[in-house]
Parts: sequence; C-alpha cells; structure tokens
Amino acid sequence: MADSNSVRLRVFSLNCWGIRYLSKHRLQRYAMIGELLSKEQHDIVLLQEVWSEKDFLGLKRKLSSSHPHSHYFRSGVIGSGLATFSRHSIHDAFLYRYSLNGYPYMAHQGDWFGGKSVGMVILKIGRLTAHVYVTHLHAEYCREKDSYLPHRVVQAWELQQFIRHTSCGSDLVILGGDLNMHPQDLGTRLLRTSTGLLDGYTETAKFDGCEDGFTHVADNPFINPKELYPFDKGIRIDYIFYKGSGTVSVRCESLSTTKGSVPNQPFPYSDHEALCAELQLQNQTAGGGNTRKEPDLAAGKLAELVDIVTEARTEVKVGLHCAERRRYTAARTGVMGLALLLLELAIAAVPCLALGADQPFPRASFYLLGALCFAILFSAFLLYVFYTMELKALQGAEDQMRLAVGSLQERLKEFSTAQPLNSICRPSDRQDPFCLEPKE
Amino acid sequence: MADSNSVRLRVFSLNCWGIRYLSKHRLQRYAMIGELLSKEQHDIVLLQEVWSEKDFLGLKRKLSSSHPHSHYFRSGVIGSGLATFSRHSIHDAFLYRYSLNGYPYMAHQGDWFGGKSVGMVILKIGRLTAHVYVTHLHAEYCREKDSYLPHRVVQAWELQQFIRHTSCGSDLVILGGDLNMHPQDLGTRLLRTSTGLLDGYTETAKFDGCEDGFTHVADNPFINPKELYPFDKGIRIDYIFYKGSGTVSVRCESLSTTKGSVPNQPFPYSDHEALCAELQLQNQTAGGGNTRKEPDLAAGKLAELVDIVTEARTEVKVGLHCAERRRYTAARTGVMGLALLLLELAIAAVPCLALGADQPFPRASFYLLGALCFAILFSAFLLYVFYTMELKALQGAEDQMRLAVGSLQERLKEFSTAQPLNSICRPSDRQDPFCLEPKE
Repeated sequence: MADSNSVRLRVFSLNCWGIRYLSKHRLQRYAMIGELLSKEQHDIVLLQEVWSEKDFLGLKRKLSSSHPHSHYFRSGVIGSGLATFSRHSIHDAFLYRYSLNGYPYMAHQGDWFGGKSVGMVILKIGRLTAHVYVTHLHAEYCREKDSYLPHRVVQAWELQQFIRHTSCGSDLVILGGDLNMHPQDLGTRLLRTSTGLLDGYTETAKFDGCEDGFTHVADNPFINPKELYPFDKGIRIDYIFYKGSGTVSVRCESLSTTKGSVPNQPFPYSDHEALCAELQLQNQTAGGGNTRKEPDLAAGKLAELVDIVTEARTEVKVGLHCAERRRYTAARTGVMGLALLLLELAIAAVPCLALGADQPFPRASFYLLGALCFAILFSAFLLYVFYTMELKALQGAEDQMRLAVGSLQERLKEFSTAQPLNSICRPSDRQDPFCLEPKE
Repeated sequence: MADSNSVRLRVFSLNCWGIRYLSKHRLQRYAMIGELLSKEQHDIVLLQEVWSEKDFLGLKRKLSSSHPHSHYFRSGVIGSGLATFSRHSIHDAFLYRYSLNGYPYMAHQGDWFGGKSVGMVILKIGRLTAHVYVTHLHAEYCREKDSYLPHRVVQAWELQQFIRHTSCGSDLVILGGDLNMHPQDLGTRLLRTSTGLLDGYTETAKFDGCEDGFTHVADNPFINPKELYPFDKGIRIDYIFYKGSGTVSVRCESLSTTKGSVPNQPFPYSDHEALCAELQLQNQTAGGGNTRKEPDLAAGKLAELVDIVTEARTEVKVGLHCAERRRYTAARTGVMGLALLLLELAIAAVPCLALGADQPFPRASFYLLGALCFAILFSAFLLYVFYTMELKALQGAEDQMRLAVGSLQERLKEFSTAQPLNSICRPSDRQDPFCLEPKE
C-alpha cells in the first residue's frame, strides 16, 4: 500500500502501426486504443508510429479528460510518429533527430521518410521532475544480412548520448519505445550500460504477458511469421526502461503486455503488443537528483562499457567501409554518365566518327541518349551527396566513440591506481571543485 | 592575482573562413592562426568554418604540444566547420544538427551543405566540469529582406534548448561562435534570456578591440563593404558567452578582438575578427552545479522571456506561411508537369488531335518533351519532399514554443499568487520532492 513517501506511476508504450491507407483496420484500432487508454488512465502514454497527425488529434480529443497533456513530435517528411499523453503537466519538450536513418530511395520501407528521432518531455509530477523519452529506431528487415545495423548502432549511440546529457537534474528517467533491437543486441547493451537504465521486463517483480516478454509475436494476425525468421514464436523489441536518482528510488512492481487478441474485438490493437509498467517511486532521504551525466559505474561495469563501445565502433567502421564503397560506385556512375554524354556530343559533332558522313546522328536517339545521360549524372550527384552525409555521420559517431573509450579507459586507470570509487562524481567533491594549479 | 580559490581561463573564438579553393590566402592564414594559438596558449579555442578536415589536421599537428586535446565536429555534406582545441582534457563530445539550415538549391550560398550545428565538449578543468559549446548559424545575406530569418530563429531556439538541457550539472558553461545575429536581434535575445548566458562584450571589465566590439568590420580586405549595408563600419555577430553555477562564479576580466591587420603580415587572420575572453572563475563555498535546466528567473525576466518567445513564435509562423506557399508551388508545378506529359502521350497516341492524321508527332520533339516533363516531375517531387520537411521542422519548433510560453505563464501565475521566488528550483525542495497525492 502506498504511503505519503511513495507514488505509483503507470507507464504505457505501444507501436500503433498507424500507416494511412496501408495499415489494416487503422481507424477501428485507434478507437480501441483510445478506449483502452481512457479506461486504464495510465499516468504516461508513449506511442510510436502515429504517422498521421489526424490520428493523434483524434486520440487527443478522446483523451482530453483522462490525459489533458500531450505532445506530438514532428520530424522528417511524414513525421517522427512519436506521441505522448500524460496525466501530469508537460513542462518542456525537445526532439533529437537521428543523424542516420536508412536511405530515401528505399521508399517502400519508408524509414528515411519517417525522420526517426527521440522525443523528450519533462513532466512535473508533484514536486518531482521526470524526464520521459520516447523513441523508435530503424527497422530490422533481415537479421541474417542486416544492412541497417550500422545505422541502428549509431541511433542507439545517439540515443544514449541524448539521454545521458539531458537527463541530468531529473528525479526520474523513463524511456519507452520500439527499439527494433533484441535485449542482447549491441545497441540495447550499449544503451543500458551507458545510461544505467533498467529494463522493466528483467527487473519486474511480477510479469503478465506473452511468453518471454515478446512484443512482436508470430500469432499476431497482422504479422507474416516469415518476417520473424529465425524466431518462431516472437521477439522482444519494445521496452520500458527506467531509473531513479539520489532523491527517488524506483522499483518495477509489475510489467504486462497485451496478449494478441482483445476481448470482444476481432483483432488486436496493433502488430506489436502494448507494454504497461507499474513503477513504485520511493522518496530517498539523502542525496540529490541526477547531478552528473555519467552513471556511477564500478570498475567491472566500466570495463564492460569499454568492450561494448569498442564493439559498436567496429560495427560503425564496417558501416563506414560500406558507405565509402557506395559513394565510390555513385562517383563512378557519374563519371560514366559524363563520358557517355561527351561521347554522344562528339559523335553528333563529327558524325563520320561512328556513323559515316552520309548518316547523321538520328535526332530522336540524340535527345533520348542525352536525357539518359543527364538523368544518370543527376542521380549519381544526389547519391554522392547523400553518401557523403552518411559518411560524415558515421565518422562523427566513430570519433565520439573513440573519445568515450579513451575517457573510460582513463577512469579505469584511476581505479587501478587505487582511487576511491567514483572519485569524479562524489558529491563531496562539489565542496571544493578546484584543484587546478592557478596560472602564474 | 589568482589565489588557490580562483582560476583564470582564456577562451578564443574565430570564424576562420576556410573554404577550399575559394577563401583567399587560406593556407597562409591558417599558418598565422596556428602560430597565434601556439604562442598565446589559450585554454579553450573555438573555431568555425574549418571546412576542410585537412586544415583541422594541420592545426592539430601544430598545436599538439600547446593544445593536446581537440575535437572536430562532422556533419552535413561538407562538415559543420566546427572545431575545438583545449589545454584541458576533453571528456565527452556531442553534436546537435539544426533541423533547418537553408535550401540545397542555393548551392552558391552553401549553408545547407555545411550541416550547421552546435557542438558540445565536456572538459575537465581540475575537478571542475565545463560544458563548452561552439556553433555557427545560418548567414544573413540581406538584412532588409532576410528570407532565412525563420531558419535562424529556429536555430537559435534549438541552440538554447540544447544548452539548457545539456548543461545541467556543469560548473561552468561557455558558448563561442558566429551567430550571424546582432546583439539585439531576436535570436540573440532569445538565447541570452532563456539560458542566462552572459555576453562577454557587455560584461567585461576591460575591452580592447574594434569599435563597438565589431567582429565583421568594413575595413577588412576580404569583405565587400556593400555586404554590410546598412552598417557602414561593421557589425558584431561573433560572441563569447559564459555563465557560472552554484559552485563557481565567473567574471569576464577582459575581452579583446583582433583589429584587422596583423603585425608583419600582409592580411588579417580571417574575414571575421577573433575574440579572446579572459574569465576569472571563483570558487563559491555554498550551492551545487547547474542542478536544474531552467535558469533561476525573476518575475520580470519571466515576463520578458514570454514576450521574446511569443515574438519568435510569430517569426516562425511567418516562415510556416512562406514554406506552405513554396510547397504549394512545388505541388502545382508537379501537376502541370504531369498534365503536360499526359497531353503529349495523348497527342502521340491520337495524332489527329493536334497535328492531323498525315503529320505524326516528330520523334525528336516527343522524346525531348517527355524528358522535360520527367525532369519537371522529379524536381517538383524533390522540392515537395524538402518543403514538407521544412514545414515539419517549423511546426515542431512552434509547438515547443507554445508549450514553453504556457509553462512560463504558469510560473508567472505562481509568482502572482505570492509564491516564493523560484519555488520550482529551490534546492530546499529537493529534500522532499514528493507532494503528489498517492493513488488510492
């Protein structure tokens, strides 16, 4: 039972699969989701793939009394698809758009057009400040040969950077969303280890839901089970993460997922299962909020993080190699287009070169070939520009990772020279932060 | 004279104007800049427009002993142009790329290709943590009719959001760069008021430099004075901002700018003047770092901020209106291209429609017209996609501004109902952050 020092917070997360004209039974499913949310009255609702603003506004109307506060994150061409509803007032909002997110010419997959991002809202829950994040990473279309892995790793890197750097000063951090990564995938480990966030599923005292916490299950009528290969029953790619602070300890009392079908309804809420976590917040008498950006890490954790960031760096390097190759191909295609154009012009100018003096270059062929050359040149130019941007983003992430590994290794050295744990972060240091030798 | 409780920190900022093949005397100027920096040994060096990585690496080699720590921020197609050198160790780096930054088809201006951003490095200065930001905003090409104003306002909005949300927990915040905004411009006021950052030029005890602190002066041989119109002598668009925290108070002891010519050299360092601030940090016995993201604002400041954000919102709405019009034009052009293509196909299929049965559609004209139609359609599609992204970014910023105004007005109301100053931010609140009514 709750006493005056504890608060219970219910957090809901769902990938709504709300693609206009493409997602089956979209409107009926949104009606079902709206009913569920207004009935259940979760404190915080984190939605993904709400691609249409109309659908968001429909939900907003429906939830105006149960969830008076909301924010819709706009980004990219279609939007970020991210939306949040809250019973507690939203104080501030900020969006970070990932620097990499697939390719625009893979239009049938649509990820690039979605402008995938991480959205942050700052909630005031009484006198508590909660930093709540919602995100959706690039989809995994083929696990065996996942060409988007470097992009997703960079997204996970940027996600943990964003959370680490912006959550300082908060009493409570919550992250919900569809990471499109399994629990033991590189990106998930990177996120968990670097931020100190806890996974609701592994931490919960009580779980009720699909086998192994799956959120993308083979039984779902909207899923083609072949897409899940090599996993027969399902995968866990949606999460609710959380962490407390010096002022608040957080415990996950229970975690539940929907189980496919919905009572009295012909189909489930979405092609993903929804997650609901019940968090118990307990007032801590001592300490302050998250006053430093780095989690307080022990030597073992630091070493683990060094390994994970090194692994991520390797993956980014693979991505760099592929992006360089792609850019080279675009440049070569452009050069070929230009050569073809020059050749055509030469033939047209001096017909005897190829066709003989009595056979002028047929006009129609001339124009058709010219148009083709221009099309090749222009496309190659656009692709070259795009791949250069991809390269810069990958190199930027790799630079940051190298810096992080260096910094972590330095801290590890501090441990080995028998300095006390978390010497940089100790609150007592704040009493006398100066140890620089004054100049002159 | 410095005592053990005080530290002097020298910060340098310069827009290097380092465009390969275009910027005059680039290599000689970099050599001069390198010499200046290695001689002066500033603690922190913030550079903008270092467009070529080769130039950065050249500087890095030259400064390897005076400034052993450095970071180069990569972004966009050419790069962000941002670089930082430091005598103190760089602990972490993070980049935020602005969501809006001009148009790719304005290739001669080049802003879009630059991927303008704000870069952050976290320095360890003894036991102090300093958050150091470097940025470069979109250029102002015509002050009378500044079509990039909404983009620059959104950049200023995102800049202040980024600094507010990431600087928490720091002892010292420094921002240097070329804002391309005058001191009383909307974006500068927005940045200053919302973050609480102090402008080195207005705060300094001692100033030595160009008249009125100008950093872009008419006398500079690389500048066409007409570009400065209606300002005859120069403008101040480069800044060093700073603020302390509960642990450290900061005073700007002196600020200087270069004054065009360099002794024994035929030309100045750049088309901008360099800035150098000498900051005096003083240990504060009480308090902690920047534990909350909002600056502690009095009622007057809050009201001023509400006005400024409202003004920014109006500017963004103007931008929205223009972007909508541009997108509409792109859509209309696309429809016209499609209509032309269909018309051509109809004429080719049924020649008697326009040309009479005995006159078939000339093949060359058919292909040429077809290629033109496709070119129109493709360009219109690309522009439509781009303008949609622009619209989303503007709408997103406007949403955030609306939320911020609401939140600020709420705090103003709290003031009027006689609540004590900064009731949300008082450190004493952290002793008992819970005042939520427990559920059930």
